[in-house]
Amino acid sequence: MKLVCTKENLKKGLSVVSRVVGTGNPLQVLNNILIKTDQGRVKLSSTNLEIGVNTWVGGKIEEEGALTVPARLINEYINNLPTDKVTLESQDNTTLKIESDNYHTSIKGLPQEDFPLIPQVTEEPFAKIDSVELRNSLAETVWASAANETQPEISGIFMAFEGDKLRVAATDRYRLAERSAQLLEPVSGSKEVIIPIRTVGELYKILSLGKGQVEIYFSESQVLFKFDETELISRLIDGQYPDYRQIIPKEFKTEVLVAREELIHALRAAALFVPDSNNINLEVKPEGLVITAASMNSGENTTQVKAKVTGLDNAAVFNFRYLLDCLNNLSEANVNLKMINDSSPAAVVPEARDNYTYIVMPIKL
Amino acid sequence: MKLVCTKENLKKGLSVVSRVVGTGNPLQVLNNILIKTDQGRVKLSSTNLEIGVNTWVGGKIEEEGALTVPARLINEYINNLPTDKVTLESQDNTTLKIESDNYHTSIKGLPQEDFPLIPQVTEEPFAKIDSVELRNSLAETVWASAANETQPEISGIFMAFEGDKLRVAATDRYRLAERSAQLLEPVSGSKEVIIPIRTVGELYKILSLGKGQVEIYFSESQVLFKFDETELISRLIDGQYPDYRQIIPKEFKTEVLVAREELIHALRAAALFVPDSNNINLEVKPEGLVITAASMNSGENTTQVKAKVTGLDNAAVFNFRYLLDCLNNLSEANVNLKMINDSSPAAVVPEARDNYTYIVMPIKL
Repeated sequence: MKLVCTKENLKKGLSVVSRVVGTGNPLQVLNNILIKTDQGRVKLSSTNLEIGVNTWVGGKIEEEGALTVPARLINEYINNLPTDKVTLESQDNTTLKIESDNYHTSIKGLPQEDFPLIPQVTEEPFAKIDSVELRNSLAETVWASAANETQPEISGIFMAFEGDKLRVAATDRYRLAERSAQLLEPVSGSKEVIIPIRTVGELYKILSLGKGQVEIYFSESQVLFKFDETELISRLIDGQYPDYRQIIPKEFKTEVLVAREELIHALRAAALFVPDSNNINLEVKPEGLVITAASMNSGENTTQVKAKVTGLDNAAVFNFRYLLDCLNNLSEANVNLKMINDSSPAAVVPEARDNYTYIVMPIKL
Repeated sequence: MKLVCTKENLKKGLSVVSRVVGTGNPLQVLNNILIKTDQGRVKLSSTNLEIGVNTWVGGKIEEEGALTVPARLINEYINNLPTDKVTLESQDNTTLKIESDNYHTSIKGLPQEDFPLIPQVTEEPFAKIDSVELRNSLAETVWASAANETQPEISGIFMAFEGDKLRVAATDRYRLAERSAQLLEPVSGSKEVIIPIRTVGELYKILSLGKGQVEIYFSESQVLFKFDETELISRLIDGQYPDYRQIIPKEFKTEVLVAREELIHALRAAALFVPDSNNINLEVKPEGLVITAASMNSGENTTQVKAKVTGLDNAAVFNFRYLLDCLNNLSEANVNLKMINDSSPAAVVPEARDNYTYIVMPIKL
């Protein structure tokens, strides 16, 4: 293999593929990325056996071939280069020579044959979606999923494709975030999958690099997202996602239209006075919300937040983190807080948008 | 105590004093700051028994008094406030009531009597210096001091006042940084002290908040820096600073004028190939520098750096971190690297400035 490409192209490609690779895997090839010539371009690939990433960058191919090299080393090396053009050349299938102006380097590598196969997808895309719409849907839900994997089926996010809609949901059984997203064209049939949380994180970073159309492909146990010059392949989580829609209340007793930032400040103030728990009190009175918190050791806080209240007075105890997670990830100036009583699910929805619902359970003391 | 001040003033003052305070000290009052009315202003004080900080902020005093409260709690609480004016009122010498618009809070505190006395300095200042000159002198030296305290006398920085000059030096016995700074007026007599590294760090942060004149006071075992509305008081390190001037060579065999950024890039490239040591090879040839590094596991790198060389060819092994520490903290486009041989001290000096010298020992393999 011998090829020439710009430092900037190579740097960009390496930063995309390097993230999924570890550094301390005892099987050295799993710390490596694969560099390969591919139909006149340079293909960079990485995998951690759960997630695989391929990306293509432009370059001048002088000799076909492939080699794997340590991801972190080549990434840091190329990042540091102050030069413009870089020549990569494999030698004896064990060394990558990197020449760039006055910089002369050899990095020890491993042959392509040692590198795990990343599954290929040859079918037609199952669905297409705008990258910003998908990214926003992930941003508004992913944090609500269960952090640990004792319940694997809720340690990922749920995606349900039907008609021209994608429904994205995440829950840890104490709260639930659901976002409905617009597909670019209706899908044929329907499909429900659970995608690992780490895949969602990588996908989010890749989608943040630009704007455009995302194609989504499925095989029996895998999903592939294709965006721009990059493919992300991941296993799917096997299991039955909980039938969460049944817990979303149809009706509420109280509705509170409140400025999002003001509610955030009030919750953060209260949070300082519950060092040993996450429980704050939220009361709805005719003139607005009253947030209170108190601790034996540090003191107490009460904040009034003006709001437009419809319906009954109400009160409940909430985990302040569960409320902040949602409020911090929305961008609307106002949100609607909906309650039934101190033991039934409450809801947060953004003002003037009907594609998002957040459900949170009050704390029963 | 009862006083009113703006959130911004209070926030600024709290951020200055909060830094030296811990959060987990079993003696609760050492996690606290002291708030005190003082001649029409609000005095905030903190101490960790080694360093004390006083700062004054404007406010409307309605009732004289003092109270201590947990530093981290009040700092975070005031930082989060979206409001403008804040009223602080002590109650029963055990509680600080904080009222601000719709935010109502009580923080548990401890009486002033429990708070350690921070020594007062009443004498005339010993020396005066421009804050930027002092800050630059700290920035160009402090990182060269010994990180651990097995040799307490070199775990701080050395300051020698004489005439209208302040000499600042730091060493860990393998390298030495010395900066000469201009005082605003000559001192009477001379003085040599060793200042703890943590004090230097705090002083640097305080000096970064503005520009102006710094007054320096001494008592037998303490130093006080006064800048703007803030005082920093610290113990001095007891001990004899090494007579470092004798190791600074008078003459060199080789001088290399080299672009600082280019040398940094070359050293960083080499650094990637010495994962198990910090040793890189530096050769001086007529046309410039050659930096090389190699490791059995990862590969090897050679970088040529063009330079203007005067004198003999030369070569030595250096700890790349020791060279980068110096190069990263200078701002000149070019530096002069001066060498004798592979076992004598080398020097780095910025081009066209004679108030700074960095001495570094080559590694003997």
